[in-house]
Amino acid sequence: MYSKVTNDDIKALAKIVGEENVLFGDEISSDYAHDELGGIEKMPEILVRVNSTEEISSVMKLAWERTIPVTVRGSGTGLVGSAVAVEGGILLETTKMNKILELDKDNLTVTVQPGVLLMELAAFAEENDFLYPPDPGEKSATIGGNISTNAGGMRAVKYGVTRDYVRALTVVMPNGEILPLGGKVAKNSSGYSLKDLVVGSEGTLCIITEAVLKLVPLPKVSVSLLVPFSDMKSAIEAVPQIFRSKVTPTAIEYMSRDTILFSESYLGKRFPDTKNDAYILLTFDGNTDEQVEADMKVVADLCLEIGAIDAYIVDTDERKKAVWSARGAFLEAIKASTTEMDECDVVVPVNKVDEFIKFTHALAEEMNVRIPSFGHAGDGNLHVYICRDSLDEKAWEEVLEKCFDRMYDEAKKLGGLVSGEHGIGYAKKGFLKELYGDTPIAIMQGIKKVFDEKNILNPGKICF
Amino acid sequence: MYSKVTNDDIKALAKIVGEENVLFGDEISSDYAHDELGGIEKMPEILVRVNSTEEISSVMKLAWERTIPVTVRGSGTGLVGSAVAVEGGILLETTKMNKILELDKDNLTVTVQPGVLLMELAAFAEENDFLYPPDPGEKSATIGGNISTNAGGMRAVKYGVTRDYVRALTVVMPNGEILPLGGKVAKNSSGYSLKDLVVGSEGTLCIITEAVLKLVPLPKVSVSLLVPFSDMKSAIEAVPQIFRSKVTPTAIEYMSRDTILFSESYLGKRFPDTKNDAYILLTFDGNTDEQVEADMKVVADLCLEIGAIDAYIVDTDERKKAVWSARGAFLEAIKASTTEMDECDVVVPVNKVDEFIKFTHALAEEMNVRIPSFGHAGDGNLHVYICRDSLDEKAWEEVLEKCFDRMYDEAKKLGGLVSGEHGIGYAKKGFLKELYGDTPIAIMQGIKKVFDEKNILNPGKICF
Repeated sequence: MYSKVTNDDIKALAKIVGEENVLFGDEISSDYAHDELGGIEKMPEILVRVNSTEEISSVMKLAWERTIPVTVRGSGTGLVGSAVAVEGGILLETTKMNKILELDKDNLTVTVQPGVLLMELAAFAEENDFLYPPDPGEKSATIGGNISTNAGGMRAVKYGVTRDYVRALTVVMPNGEILPLGGKVAKNSSGYSLKDLVVGSEGTLCIITEAVLKLVPLPKVSVSLLVPFSDMKSAIEAVPQIFRSKVTPTAIEYMSRDTILFSESYLGKRFPDTKNDAYILLTFDGNTDEQVEADMKVVADLCLEIGAIDAYIVDTDERKKAVWSARGAFLEAIKASTTEMDECDVVVPVNKVDEFIKFTHALAEEMNVRIPSFGHAGDGNLHVYICRDSLDEKAWEEVLEKCFDRMYDEAKKLGGLVSGEHGIGYAKKGFLKELYGDTPIAIMQGIKKVFDEKNILNPGKICF
Repeated sequence: MYSKVTNDDIKALAKIVGEENVLFGDEISSDYAHDELGGIEKMPEILVRVNSTEEISSVMKLAWERTIPVTVRGSGTGLVGSAVAVEGGILLETTKMNKILELDKDNLTVTVQPGVLLMELAAFAEENDFLYPPDPGEKSATIGGNISTNAGGMRAVKYGVTRDYVRALTVVMPNGEILPLGGKVAKNSSGYSLKDLVVGSEGTLCIITEAVLKLVPLPKVSVSLLVPFSDMKSAIEAVPQIFRSKVTPTAIEYMSRDTILFSESYLGKRFPDTKNDAYILLTFDGNTDEQVEADMKVVADLCLEIGAIDAYIVDTDERKKAVWSARGAFLEAIKASTTEMDECDVVVPVNKVDEFIKFTHALAEEMNVRIPSFGHAGDGNLHVYICRDSLDEKAWEEVLEKCFDRMYDEAKKLGGLVSGEHGIGYAKKGFLKELYGDTPIAIMQGIKKVFDEKNILNPGKICF
């Protein structure tokens, strides 16, 4: 049903983007066959590096006419195979579109190309005394990728997720048409929100070529608090109680001693405390020391009252670095601790996090497999890793299937969803169907067809 | 193409919802032929008052099978004809579904039926020391209506709009199927966000029968500041400068002397100051007096520096009431000042508000018609009213058409959109098409068909 890329196509594409931006055959690094997690592998027929909205439009016109599948890729830091060209065809890389186009201090927005990295945007905002609140762990992801997965990150507790910061998008439709969606406006009730449909659609509906993002004034003060508990249950149970105290932390992360030790050995750096079984790490921000300290005190006192071992203020640069670099390395550290792994990115109501983690511990014991986890206790989004260790291929596949089935079942039972921030992509399609049932999937398929009748844009993902 | 409601249908509907909840013919008050603004009039064939999700499901199964159009109505406070049964059929009223079902203090959510009034929800939240941030002017609107229009309100500057507070919905599809959308979770990357598609869809895709809404802890301190300026240009130009100061007010409203005088005469109550041509009214909230006062001082000093006549702190209960009851009465007051009116609810970038208001003043002069306005200077959403006064029918229609065309053109030129918070409904369909062009409208039509192949749910609205 799809056409293969021919020599004529290669010539036509080279004419659009320049010869140096068209790679095929052995010229394409095998890195382009998979994303950060691996597991899903397929080489594209051709890699096209684009420089502008207009180039993307021209590429899509060609692909549409010839019915060639197109998969968009940013930095390739995804974990569910969304940026893998599972049907072959064109892999369209946006990393050269990495310009910050405008800072609008009147409207508190920044306009960026999709290939800008999260860390570049974060630094740019800070240099200008603003904060771009979404803060996913993977700082080298592109903003286009963050928007496409509706990435969440650590500050979602207070500031919400990527969706909440997308004011407007310029997109290229599968047939090459360029459309503006949304506007540089704070309110919008002008028909169905196509912009919100595109946010989180993992490159299946259209290609994001420019984004207007909302910024907030940079809080003047930001301090973290590391709170050790004797066990995970007590640590996690503190979270809803913190919410009841009416203080809103910026972030609440949980971490187990095991995960911290992986990270210490991976980074070769010490964590301030590893004596206890479980920790929560909180951040508070605001514009005055007094306010932030008052908030922190309420939470520290509360935690101590309900059984925390201690409450360390993370205020020196050194300590901040030690704590947050450890937190930032968890995924890589767990990956380095095993031969292969796969992840579960469920989100559950905040007061069900404890129950879910307990479930994964019991499951690990039952299946005789390691299932370390860490994540966002403050927003219910957990990152749970099933480690292959020494299992052979067959045993690994069996364990994976069983563990995933059981975990997503449990998430559903607790009122949770398949993915909090990593998306569905190729890897989690089956679990999405399982969770939602036929009608929502049929609606999604219908919507996909409305945007992309020929199903050429990132085929085989989410709902197909 | 649609079936008319027959005696058999009436009997079947009475069986579902009880005879007392089915009204037809002369039993239906003529109020049900129009919404708050009037202008668009059509009596439904039958009025059905529903009590539960299950009843709605049964009504829709019947309507689907018989191809009878169904229009959902809350309190009927809309301004664009969304809740008018323009194709006849069933008007389905949700006001009896007015229960607050759950307050979840662990997850900071409240679960409500769609017929709960905004003022009821606001009061309930406050009684429990929470804030439901969206604060549209019309407090007797239902939450179902607020979600269906993605209502914005005054606090959007700091807190965002209704969309940002909808965690989950239970909906009934046009064919009667009951679906849950979203979850009691803070993050979600589990396929296309159908929940976000339904928010703002004005009852055209499915019927909202339950909503899980996010709350925030009630700020302990909230103070307003009334700042008079010698002219509107100076007042509005202050707003982007306030943003540049890095203080985020909760709300920034603008109001002209004219509008305040209408309100004084309508309410029979004095406003604290009417000597000046233009005012901005700001609110600041936070958890300590010090912080709120510090924020307020930055803004007051800035305003005085750039030419404000004064800066009154609105802190006594009496003054608060005088100021906010006036602000709350603007729409009614303008309505009472004329024979008939129609409104324009554009949203433009914050730094274009001044230009847009200037444009409406010039237009009023050119067309020899009154065009008072007020609105949300802090989020660019303006409420502009064209007053009929003594014009005859023909002249009125001509003036309206010309004024709307010119205003929406100007909004487009300034990067604005047709509606900031009132929606498109029946009244603004043409302008939406004009603004977006063919493709976005075709996508919306496609989406509508995916949800509602028979086009029985609120037909004739938004994109059809």
